[in-house]
Amino acid sequence: MAPVLADSVRLTENGVQILDRRGFPFAREWVLCRTSDEVAKAIEDMVTQSSGPYFAALYGMVLAAREAAGLRPHAAYAYLEQAGTRLIRARSTNNHLRKAVHAVLSTAAGSGDDLIASAMAGAHAGDELYRERSRALGSAAAALLPDEGGVLTHCWADLYLIETVSAAQRSGKRLRFFCTETRPYLQGARLTAETLVEMGVDTTLISDGMGAAVMQSGEVDALITAADRVTMDGHVVNKVGTLGLAVAATAFGIPFHALVQAPDQDAPTAADVPIEYRPGDEVLHTLGMRTASEKVRGLYPAFDVTPPRFVATIVTDRGPFEPHRIAEYYREGETNQ
Amino acid sequence: MAPVLADSVRLTENGVQILDRRGFPFAREWVLCRTSDEVAKAIEDMVTQSSGPYFAALYGMVLAAREAAGLRPHAAYAYLEQAGTRLIRARSTNNHLRKAVHAVLSTAAGSGDDLIASAMAGAHAGDELYRERSRALGSAAAALLPDEGGVLTHCWADLYLIETVSAAQRSGKRLRFFCTETRPYLQGARLTAETLVEMGVDTTLISDGMGAAVMQSGEVDALITAADRVTMDGHVVNKVGTLGLAVAATAFGIPFHALVQAPDQDAPTAADVPIEYRPGDEVLHTLGMRTASEKVRGLYPAFDVTPPRFVATIVTDRGPFEPHRIAEYYREGETNQ
Repeated sequence: MAPVLADSVRLTENGVQILDRRGFPFAREWVLCRTSDEVAKAIEDMVTQSSGPYFAALYGMVLAAREAAGLRPHAAYAYLEQAGTRLIRARSTNNHLRKAVHAVLSTAAGSGDDLIASAMAGAHAGDELYRERSRALGSAAAALLPDEGGVLTHCWADLYLIETVSAAQRSGKRLRFFCTETRPYLQGARLTAETLVEMGVDTTLISDGMGAAVMQSGEVDALITAADRVTMDGHVVNKVGTLGLAVAATAFGIPFHALVQAPDQDAPTAADVPIEYRPGDEVLHTLGMRTASEKVRGLYPAFDVTPPRFVATIVTDRGPFEPHRIAEYYREGETNQ
Repeated sequence: MAPVLADSVRLTENGVQILDRRGFPFAREWVLCRTSDEVAKAIEDMVTQSSGPYFAALYGMVLAAREAAGLRPHAAYAYLEQAGTRLIRARSTNNHLRKAVHAVLSTAAGSGDDLIASAMAGAHAGDELYRERSRALGSAAAALLPDEGGVLTHCWADLYLIETVSAAQRSGKRLRFFCTETRPYLQGARLTAETLVEMGVDTTLISDGMGAAVMQSGEVDALITAADRVTMDGHVVNKVGTLGLAVAATAFGIPFHALVQAPDQDAPTAADVPIEYRPGDEVLHTLGMRTASEKVRGLYPAFDVTPPRFVATIVTDRGPFEPHRIAEYYREGETNQ
């Protein structure tokens, strides 16, 4: 069954509907954005995360085309460019936004209904391309998993996880998943757990400190997570907590497969990736409730960096790579995919 | 400054006052137990944990002596034995309770004021012995820490932690602590964080998945935790999450020191220690609030077992031991201390 998070950004006559991931799954509320500017605002407000902003930006650009439909071609295109800049700025560290905006700008032309139709063509192509690449990645990841066994995952791998599970199910594999709750935002307890169960997967939730014990018990055959970024020398940058699980997996002889569409040519080494620190206050709270001593301060490094020695495979839309060979993803002269 | 958790069980004229650790530090409520039976009930209800039940049982036995003061010597002693059995049964896996009851039974005699005074002497001796051993252990642990540096700890090491920090402060060491929140019960976020700050220690709270990243960053010079039990072949049984931190510490060249008064002669190997599973539902909640998908099930192995290859030192009241030499703690013919 297709889980709701596989299709959580929808273009309608009235605007773009975005499933609010902040309260999901306790509430299933859709935010209606009537203008491209409201889409940018929703992205800024973290209504959606992970792959969500990419799809939101694609359809936000279609709204911009509707807004510009009455203008002449040059003015309309300038309007689209401006709307694109606003969308990209909504979350400046997200490369996906740039790609989404570009996908629409590269096809949009003319005015009136032509403008809208050409923008829509770009958005659809961008939508399909992302899903196709995720499917290719998911098939490659599923091929690495046993026909029957346990898989541990951390945080929320979004479409990569959904496509990996779908591919495994299509080929008749019977997998049991363990997922970590992923403090402080609980993406694992909320998004991953809900989605896996929606897909009919046997799913067990553990707290973030339990991964090593579950791996030591022999119940886990593979660790898989998304990667926010993979450097050209095979370092995996992902939600904090990934490193500890990868180190434990290595110690207990369990392969760690990191999922990413493509490595990042703008990041030759781990030193080229600045680690984002979010407000330490988040660690002191859980869903808005204070859960720590009033006297202490918190620290929240959002990501950690797993060195290649703790990574078995980097799975891309062009198949699996050993981490030290990930640079071979690119053909000669090719740039960031 | 002495933190409140260093002295959280108090004998008064009216009974035994026990600080309720379940809501601490959000509430600082003391539960008054007027009878030895009420003390047993409080232990059963988890009002206090860790070293708390030991002190509660010591003074619960003094209450039993007060209750039996009007009886003749033989009847009074029988009453004390019965009260002791009730206290020991309050938490059957806790060896400390047996020791506390025995400490009082070994001195109690006579009737009337004599009975009360002799019971009190046993309770005081038991109290002082536990604190003395914790102090010896704390001094030995502090000696392993640098004069200035970072220490990571997990869960709540109670008097062992308090005495280690006190000893380090007495010898002028300047330590910065990182502590994990320790889901699902948040002992780290509540008990450890509050206590360290009360003691004037620079303290930073992290979530359970962040330990490896903080160790990789170079800010941690040692990992220290209590051990619920240490086997005679050097395995460390402690709150789940310890194993993952120990594996990461080893990978990043950081020593892991486990604190325990003495290894357990009744546990020759890790196979002799059954792992307790608590209700998986706890992982789905935080301080009583649902924090996970309604569809998923949780798993809560309360402890994990760290093999000796990931342990640098086992620190006891007789000083530090390498894990593979921990059996040397006992002198010939000596039994469990």
